[in-house]
Amino acid sequence: MANAEPATKKQKIETEETLLEEIDTTQNEIDALNEQASEEILKIEQKYNKLRKPFYDKRAAIIEKVDKFWLTTFINHPRISSILQDQEEDCLHYMTKLHVEDFDDVKTGYRISFHFKENPYFENEVLTKEFHLAAENMSDNFTQTSTATQIKWKDGKDLLKELQSKPTNKKRDADHKSFFDWFLDTHDPSTDDIAETLKDDIFPNPLQYFLVPDIGVYNDEDDSA
Amino acid sequence: MANAEPATKKQKIETEETLLEEIDTTQNEIDALNEQASEEILKIEQKYNKLRKPFYDKRAAIIEKVDKFWLTTFINHPRISSILQDQEEDCLHYMTKLHVEDFDDVKTGYRISFHFKENPYFENEVLTKEFHLAAENMSDNFTQTSTATQIKWKDGKDLLKELQSKPTNKKRDADHKSFFDWFLDTHDPSTDDIAETLKDDIFPNPLQYFLVPDIGVYNDEDDSA
Ligand SMILES: [Ca+2]
Ligand SMILES: [Ca+2]
Ligand SMILES: [Mg+2]
Ligand SMILES: [Mg+2]
Repeated sequence: MANAEPATKKQKIETEETLLEEIDTTQNEIDALNEQASEEILKIEQKYNKLRKPFYDKRAAIIEKVDKFWLTTFINHPRISSILQDQEEDCLHYMTKLHVEDFDDVKTGYRISFHFKENPYFENEVLTKEFHLAAENMSDNFTQTSTATQIKWKDGKDLLKELQSKPTNKKRDADHKSFFDWFLDTHDPSTDDIAETLKDDIFPNPLQYFLVPDIGVYNDEDDSA
Repeated sequence: MANAEPATKKQKIETEETLLEEIDTTQNEIDALNEQASEEILKIEQKYNKLRKPFYDKRAAIIEKVDKFWLTTFINHPRISSILQDQEEDCLHYMTKLHVEDFDDVKTGYRISFHFKENPYFENEVLTKEFHLAAENMSDNFTQTSTATQIKWKDGKDLLKELQSKPTNKKRDADHKSFFDWFLDTHDPSTDDIAETLKDDIFPNPLQYFLVPDIGVYNDEDDSA
């Protein structure tokens, strides 16, 4: 028995080791299938990004002709309106286009662009915020970084300075003090619910928010008044 | 001027109405593309669920031969171990198989099955928890409901009664007091991070947790000791 026990123990260990190697082999086959599935899904997303593009362009061209479309849409959206300051609402009168697009490979990030016509607040025609996903290591851990266009404020028109000099002007409670405070904040983009709202809720269908809460001006009563 | 103004106003309203109708038309085309994209992605998920199945079955058959595979995996997983009670760990010695599968149409939910061999705690061979997604209305709002197999505890072996009679036995802080408390809790499944951990983290690759923190028994030192 004294001789048999170590042999049995060793045998048991070798058996378990063999089993774990077999599990690992099967796991590698599962991982390879997951990889293939991800690639196929990615190709579909890329295909539909291309197919959607002309319709987004067409929609953008019509939206540009609608007075205060983006201002109204932002004001009507509960999450965005929660960070909009009075002066920012005035500034957003001049916003003509919102565009959100994945980077070409879809996986590594996306950009949100805000287009403005000539306005009293800043020189930029486009303000762009980009979100970059970077694989941190071999497993699926990602870090997210973001960048934002530097805003060329016109003299005395820096809305963030306004905000800092009037702390009591903050009218609602939110993680971000204001729209431009959000825009310029590139710290910890992994928990950016404003960016997610713009990307996954507003850009896919802004009209639903533009039309809420009321489209009263289009009814017959208004015409006959 | 008094006559012209209403006409201009009406013209402006009609123009905007026309524009909004055009936006709506374009939006419907975008929505249709989104629908198509979802369907294509769903088909890929269904295809790969089928392709993965034989490998998951093969993996399960090998795992059954490894002593305390699931107990060890659960103990090594930080989130699952946070709700495991001492007596539950004893009970999980008898767990032989974990299986997670989408319902056939993928979209409407999934089930998590825990298989047990003959054990001192309950009569059931399989405990299954199902999560059902139901579309609440025409837009994409869903409600989730869950169901759990009724556990046929053996006499004096109800681990939840044990837990209730010994409130000081709760060894760690968590939303759920214990593993079986989680299993039997079908209230508000929409925020069930234990289910998500089992589905998206452990089942896709349990070996990584089984092997952590130590695979010391397989090194040469143990053999020569
Ligand atoms: Ca109306
Ligand atoms: Ca070792
Ligand atoms: Mg647009
Ligand atoms: Mg298994």
